[in-house]
Amino acid sequence: MSISNKVRKSMVEGSWIRKMFEDGAILKQQYGEENVFDFSLGNPVMEPPSEFVQELRKLAENPLPGMHRYMANAGYPETRTAVAEQLSLETGIKFTMKEIVMSCGAGGALNVLLKTILNPGEEVILFAPYFIEYVFYIDNHGGVAKVVPTDEQFIPKLDVLEDSIEANTKAVLINSPNNPTGVVYSEDLIHQLGELLQRKGAQYGTEIFLISDEPYRKIIFDGLKYPSPFNHYSQSIVATSHSKDLSLPGERIGYIAVHPDCSQREDIVDGCTHCTRILGYTNAPALMQNIVRHLQNVTVPIAEYQKKRDFLYSHLSEMGYSVIKPQGAFYMFPKSPLEDDVAFVRELQQQRVLTVPGSGFGAPGYFRISYCVDDRTLEGSLTAFRKSAQKFNRL
Amino acid sequence: MSISNKVRKSMVEGSWIRKMFEDGAILKQQYGEENVFDFSLGNPVMEPPSEFVQELRKLAENPLPGMHRYMANAGYPETRTAVAEQLSLETGIKFTMKEIVMSCGAGGALNVLLKTILNPGEEVILFAPYFIEYVFYIDNHGGVAKVVPTDEQFIPKLDVLEDSIEANTKAVLINSPNNPTGVVYSEDLIHQLGELLQRKGAQYGTEIFLISDEPYRKIIFDGLKYPSPFNHYSQSIVATSHSKDLSLPGERIGYIAVHPDCSQREDIVDGCTHCTRILGYTNAPALMQNIVRHLQNVTVPIAEYQKKRDFLYSHLSEMGYSVIKPQGAFYMFPKSPLEDDVAFVRELQQQRVLTVPGSGFGAPGYFRISYCVDDRTLEGSLTAFRKSAQKFNRL
Repeated sequence: MSISNKVRKSMVEGSWIRKMFEDGAILKQQYGEENVFDFSLGNPVMEPPSEFVQELRKLAENPLPGMHRYMANAGYPETRTAVAEQLSLETGIKFTMKEIVMSCGAGGALNVLLKTILNPGEEVILFAPYFIEYVFYIDNHGGVAKVVPTDEQFIPKLDVLEDSIEANTKAVLINSPNNPTGVVYSEDLIHQLGELLQRKGAQYGTEIFLISDEPYRKIIFDGLKYPSPFNHYSQSIVATSHSKDLSLPGERIGYIAVHPDCSQREDIVDGCTHCTRILGYTNAPALMQNIVRHLQNVTVPIAEYQKKRDFLYSHLSEMGYSVIKPQGAFYMFPKSPLEDDVAFVRELQQQRVLTVPGSGFGAPGYFRISYCVDDRTLEGSLTAFRKSAQKFNRL
Repeated sequence: MSISNKVRKSMVEGSWIRKMFEDGAILKQQYGEENVFDFSLGNPVMEPPSEFVQELRKLAENPLPGMHRYMANAGYPETRTAVAEQLSLETGIKFTMKEIVMSCGAGGALNVLLKTILNPGEEVILFAPYFIEYVFYIDNHGGVAKVVPTDEQFIPKLDVLEDSIEANTKAVLINSPNNPTGVVYSEDLIHQLGELLQRKGAQYGTEIFLISDEPYRKIIFDGLKYPSPFNHYSQSIVATSHSKDLSLPGERIGYIAVHPDCSQREDIVDGCTHCTRILGYTNAPALMQNIVRHLQNVTVPIAEYQKKRDFLYSHLSEMGYSVIKPQGAFYMFPKSPLEDDVAFVRELQQQRVLTVPGSGFGAPGYFRISYCVDDRTLEGSLTAFRKSAQKFNRL
């Protein structure tokens, strides 16, 4: 009798990214930090924008009275209102603070939301490859994750989805721009997805939520416009954070936004407020709430990520890697030249390049490169990527 | 099919403090903030100490490179080490960072810890009156809360506890200085409690954790020394925060500390690190971790709370209220002059004094006064307290 059996089991299973991180730490000790090329974590190397630094200084120099105290569990009205105004701008739909609950990052947002909506055994559908944490988040609150495959371009197969939806399907969870593939879903796909969920809900007499995890919403390339699920399906709920668009992953600041026309909007917002409390989050960190309310229209320089993508994509393609060109986020998900993606990742690791096997995302046969790194790392890794391609490429 | 049935139910049941908060907001709108005397929340009116303000300014002016990025889920090694050093000083036991996991407040700490240790149906014993959130936290992770009464002085009855411990008792959860009573457990009691758990564990072939929720550890009066469970029982685990000792409740910064001699120390720390991740906390807020590592020996001026206690205690006693003199925290828990504590709280509310009925803490017949308020509120409330005492006191 010590720790929970389930937690012990999940520690063994869900540890690919962690394992790479730990192996990497050993390599860095052995060879020096500068001789290890670490693409294992989605931990942006960019500092927060100057507007953030200014707001932080302003509050540090002239603290607001009581600015570190508890506020209502859903967050400061001013912050919720600022988020609502930005969403109104982005979508053309009128949001107010009544649709917003501030959260401890997207991880906090998703846990609070899933706790709020899930009855035991209800299903949440994911598309593979998926961010492994989703499986834990769903399980934390008694739900069941059901995985549906995507096509060769990592786009959900709607016909397979249609067959997978059942009476106890509570939600479909999407993530675009996608971790780990960098793929951005098209407006057309989102629209069809909305129609499908509407139709299947009517068929079963249920209302299926479309949960959109979109921390990479603003990290989008090639002049694309982000197609928001809010514009295509009224049972949409967004869970997101400023971890990537403001480079604040360590500060745990994000939010939940419920479509104003969602049929159970008030229940869901009240439930999320309550679950923010009873899950022990209590509220999103106060200081960050006070800062990000001034930064809703600020983003890190996306062009820099696009440059990094272009650099890596062109080199990897030229080396013979089969890779879908990502249009957002800061991940690339090439096919592993070896069928055994774990073996290939180990091969790269021996050359001091750290990536994560696709198996860690429910997609064996691929590997993830997280390219939110400095240019030195990008440039320094090319030799190893080339060598490994030559060694295994069967083309 | 909308939100979870269980969450809907818990929203109705567990809402006393929230209800008071909401009623209070309406009263404040009606009569003006300054004419409502709000003792409903444990939301310290004191600002953080000047050392905090300085550290925040230092970081705002001279940001450390990467200080807003993810770090390891357990927190920065430097912060964990600083916490360990402070605990070593306080207890005389040698702690290292290997025993510390940084958390999003004590609420985060308790949820992470309970998720880590609880198998479905395992029991956690609480003493009434108790902080209502505990019941949610235990239930979140499949555990069962078992409530054991205290005596007239709000001290656990060890003989009743002994009879309540069974083979599936995973932990006993204590909170001293106590919310809602302000009582501080004696060294002798903690020692006997440790011996009892040792004996019962041996009897069942289990090892029962003593979880000590101690955010008020440093808010202690009358020259008392805090008796740490670490000095009396090696299966002790502390969950705490800097919400009260540094007046930072909105910032969500705390930690878990496991006794260095705990038989499953490494498992527990690894499990808590993993559960910090999979519960979506990911890590304790980075900026606060960087600040509090310099403030481990800093505390808000406790003498001010003691003065507030003295003021309120002497007045309430003189008015005829039956109340145990609190020796820590910033709560008082008088007997309700009316048997129906909810009715009495409503009576006070009509005079614009906000408190919380004991029913909200598993202790009907009492009411909680949270006196971490400004002196104006203390002074302004006396008339209402006196009037209500005169109206109902049967003495």
